[in-house]
Amino acid sequence: MTMIADPSVKYRPFPQVDLPDRQWPGQTITRAPRWLSTDMRDGNQALIDPMNAEKKQRFFDLLVKVGLKEIEVGFPSAGATEFDFISGLVRNDKIPDDVFVQVLTQARQDLIEKTFESLRGAKQAIVHVYNAVSPAWRRIVFGMDRPEIKQIAVTAAKLLRDEAAKQPNTDWHFEYSPETFSTAELDFSLECCEAVMDILQPTPEKPLILNLPATVEAATPNIYADQIEWMCRNISRRDSVVISLHPHNDRGTGVAAAELGVMAGADRVEGCLFGNGERTGNCDLVTVALNLYTQGVHPGLDFSDIDEVVQTVEYCNQLPVHPRHPYAGELVFTAFSGSHQDAIKKGFAAQEARNDQIWDVPYLPIDPKDLGRDYEAVIRVNSQSGKGGVAWVLQQDKGLKLPKRMQADFSRVVQEVADSTSRELNAADIWDAFEEHYRLKPGQPIRLITYERSGSIGGADRSFIGRLEIEGEEHAVSGRGKGLISGILSALREESGIELEVVDYNEHAIGSGTDVQAAAYVECKTPDGRIFFGVGVDEDVATASVQAVISAANGLKARAA
Amino acid sequence: MTMIADPSVKYRPFPQVDLPDRQWPGQTITRAPRWLSTDMRDGNQALIDPMNAEKKQRFFDLLVKVGLKEIEVGFPSAGATEFDFISGLVRNDKIPDDVFVQVLTQARQDLIEKTFESLRGAKQAIVHVYNAVSPAWRRIVFGMDRPEIKQIAVTAAKLLRDEAAKQPNTDWHFEYSPETFSTAELDFSLECCEAVMDILQPTPEKPLILNLPATVEAATPNIYADQIEWMCRNISRRDSVVISLHPHNDRGTGVAAAELGVMAGADRVEGCLFGNGERTGNCDLVTVALNLYTQGVHPGLDFSDIDEVVQTVEYCNQLPVHPRHPYAGELVFTAFSGSHQDAIKKGFAAQEARNDQIWDVPYLPIDPKDLGRDYEAVIRVNSQSGKGGVAWVLQQDKGLKLPKRMQADFSRVVQEVADSTSRELNAADIWDAFEEHYRLKPGQPIRLITYERSGSIGGADRSFIGRLEIEGEEHAVSGRGKGLISGILSALREESGIELEVVDYNEHAIGSGTDVQAAAYVECKTPDGRIFFGVGVDEDVATASVQAVISAANGLKARAA
Repeated sequence: MTMIADPSVKYRPFPQVDLPDRQWPGQTITRAPRWLSTDMRDGNQALIDPMNAEKKQRFFDLLVKVGLKEIEVGFPSAGATEFDFISGLVRNDKIPDDVFVQVLTQARQDLIEKTFESLRGAKQAIVHVYNAVSPAWRRIVFGMDRPEIKQIAVTAAKLLRDEAAKQPNTDWHFEYSPETFSTAELDFSLECCEAVMDILQPTPEKPLILNLPATVEAATPNIYADQIEWMCRNISRRDSVVISLHPHNDRGTGVAAAELGVMAGADRVEGCLFGNGERTGNCDLVTVALNLYTQGVHPGLDFSDIDEVVQTVEYCNQLPVHPRHPYAGELVFTAFSGSHQDAIKKGFAAQEARNDQIWDVPYLPIDPKDLGRDYEAVIRVNSQSGKGGVAWVLQQDKGLKLPKRMQADFSRVVQEVADSTSRELNAADIWDAFEEHYRLKPGQPIRLITYERSGSIGGADRSFIGRLEIEGEEHAVSGRGKGLISGILSALREESGIELEVVDYNEHAIGSGTDVQAAAYVECKTPDGRIFFGVGVDEDVATASVQAVISAANGLKARAA
Repeated sequence: MTMIADPSVKYRPFPQVDLPDRQWPGQTITRAPRWLSTDMRDGNQALIDPMNAEKKQRFFDLLVKVGLKEIEVGFPSAGATEFDFISGLVRNDKIPDDVFVQVLTQARQDLIEKTFESLRGAKQAIVHVYNAVSPAWRRIVFGMDRPEIKQIAVTAAKLLRDEAAKQPNTDWHFEYSPETFSTAELDFSLECCEAVMDILQPTPEKPLILNLPATVEAATPNIYADQIEWMCRNISRRDSVVISLHPHNDRGTGVAAAELGVMAGADRVEGCLFGNGERTGNCDLVTVALNLYTQGVHPGLDFSDIDEVVQTVEYCNQLPVHPRHPYAGELVFTAFSGSHQDAIKKGFAAQEARNDQIWDVPYLPIDPKDLGRDYEAVIRVNSQSGKGGVAWVLQQDKGLKLPKRMQADFSRVVQEVADSTSRELNAADIWDAFEEHYRLKPGQPIRLITYERSGSIGGADRSFIGRLEIEGEEHAVSGRGKGLISGILSALREESGIELEVVDYNEHAIGSGTDVQAAAYVECKTPDGRIFFGVGVDEDVATASVQAVISAANGLKARAA
């Protein structure tokens, strides 16, 4: 492999914008822009299998549900499917009263006429006309000079004005795009925009949407912001235009371009859900919107059931949302690393303890619940995970809150399993390892059949009397001690020679109400200093303790065997 | 679905950096930063199935082949798989002389010792130590104040210094990360960095790498650039440190953060191929590198066989590269839209005509050939495509250069097929529709069996004499005219009543040398003004013309039937 020795002979650096007093780097976004979804137009035209009418309707309904108020529904002059779908939306009264459908057309008379035809009877609509103004397109595609190109825009604007006049019962709005704005000379884009404004005579009450697309993303996003700020400063009648952004993602910075562009003064952002669109896609409206959300600014869009949005979009586009896609991917709230898991666990605990509304959990910039996701998938275990993750899974799944040293003990077990299987361990794997290691499965050497407690309260002679199965044989056993645990320990010593001392003991409830269970944990030590942990779960707190001791005893037995 | 009414009660806006005289927005990137791949560490720890030794070796070899000189190979103290792989790299002499492996460790004595142990015998290495310094971590995770946190860094630095001294034959370098830098107070990050520098005493000849991670991306990328510029300005001994970036992608702006961070003065970028890494991933080194490439700056990395890189990374990570991933996705050089296809076609033609080295093709920010891709996938046809795309496919695939009006004729045919099948049409589909529409398939009403030309040259009596199969019967036919085409037309008129006049005629060679063929196109008109196009391909130019006329005649027959 060798890339050409010197790309500077083939590729030219993008020129800077002369704007030394740029203001946008000091701005923050304090309110949401207007949003336009072009999923059904820019997105659709870039699909391997463009949507049929059923998928289009489904996508449209989703966009309405999410709260989009401006939806580019297609290119009515491009073909029968497009035309019929759009005119069907109008005819069948599928457009909510507060939603503006937008349609795209090239700047040609027959196409513009057909476009207006498709919207006959609409309450309101935006007609979006474009022509390419940038030098590469002028030279290579059209072979025209600046005045000729500007004339195309002027002619188109007149057609918009005149066609709109023929259907006075519709509330018409217009959008003009000097296409490939991001690679055009700013002064010429401005000139074309001004010429269109001269024809359409926008007002603050009825502004013209000027869309300034990064049709091809060709520079770092700060350059796009400079271009937008330059246009916002230099356009006449700023109060009569809505500056709209349409950033593509060829350099992987479409979201940044939208954000910096809004800081630079834009009023509106065009894009697609999860960044569909030509080539590398349009800027992702979901990410831009949720980026605002996490800064305390309501985007005016509702992604509180993000999984439903993902499913519908994947179905309609037949393209996947990547597992690492911000906010929406399968893995974006998942921590496999032990230190991350530990921090997240502590973050949740602190959140609960603080009991305020402020979200402040390490590694989670947004509360997964705000997107309709639960916490189960937050912590997952692979060979790189530590004790925090394992403990979290047991707690989430089984309600067990292992004491800290037992967490460390079990974490080593899980690490070995993960290392040897070399794949993610799911909750079932972890539970299996837990039952195996702490001898909770059937067929252990020692099994409790029944027991009772007897003897005087508070004295040293309170004892344990019960029946154990030991190596397949039933034994009546009894043991003396200060309490139940020392009783069973002494019974075990007498009956099967097991020498264990309890060095730590913990117990907690699982659940509440009538379903409540008790979990007991014992840390036991042999005379030669070896440690065995045991666990017992039972409806009865006392029985849980006895089971925990037997669990530890079986551990010792297994090691000895 | 309803998102909470007011996210401002739950999420706080990220504070600005007080840096009104920031310089980075006026900078451009004119040389490549140093690159660190953390695919095998940050990437690996975030995989559902972390890499086994075979995959790790494969990834390492790929990174070396691509040209990475600094590779974070793992977290040797995290487990046996990690330790063994890393010590194996050293023992088995797998590290090229000009490559620095880097390993990560937490700031704890036992872990640091184990880390140095894993690298015993290495020629050179970078040991990377981190501790979390940001307020959420201090408060929630550690319950420590600033001096205690700083002390962790100082202790770790001393351990690095002392452990390194024990293995003097290795050329040790160090990296320190004040973790979650992007959400920490700048003055405290600086204080920790300075304290580490005081211990390690870096020099311009042996600088310390200071990594300033956006561990969690929490603000627009301009804020990260402000933070980086602030650090670059305020750090003492700037010439003795290498400022490294480690942007994550929680807000979808990791690539932008890296680019603006380099503009702000950083020397080095950490990331993963195609943006793998915890949660939403690290910044994508491929995109950042190729973004430089398209600006004429050689990144020092070689992606001239991008498909091989994609395949290896997908194999090792068991995660897909998205079809719209910049530079690498399946669809990123694909145009389905008619106007885009048309512009690209013209761009290629202009490129050829200009014959200079400068790349300037609409909609293609990089020459796909520079990435080892060919042009076949550039133009693909769906129901949204126009005549340009169809014409391109026929030209690429069959060598046919349809005249413009015939392009329009056939494009309508393809549009109908695409509309009715509602899926992408591949080259075979298009060819099938072509053969069908222009009656090139077997079983047509009229078929040429043989023919000869005779008669005087240049006169009006040159004629066509041949044998045609018409509706299953063989006919000896002849026709008079000024040339071969008028001869066959007159023969058809006499023999089967077909009235056609040729209004346009085109012919071109396909291929060259002994394999050359001729393609002929006729546009024919009936007396009532209907147009039928015909096409013929044959080794002989004359026969191709005759076949083209018969193709048009069969079209008329089919319409009449």
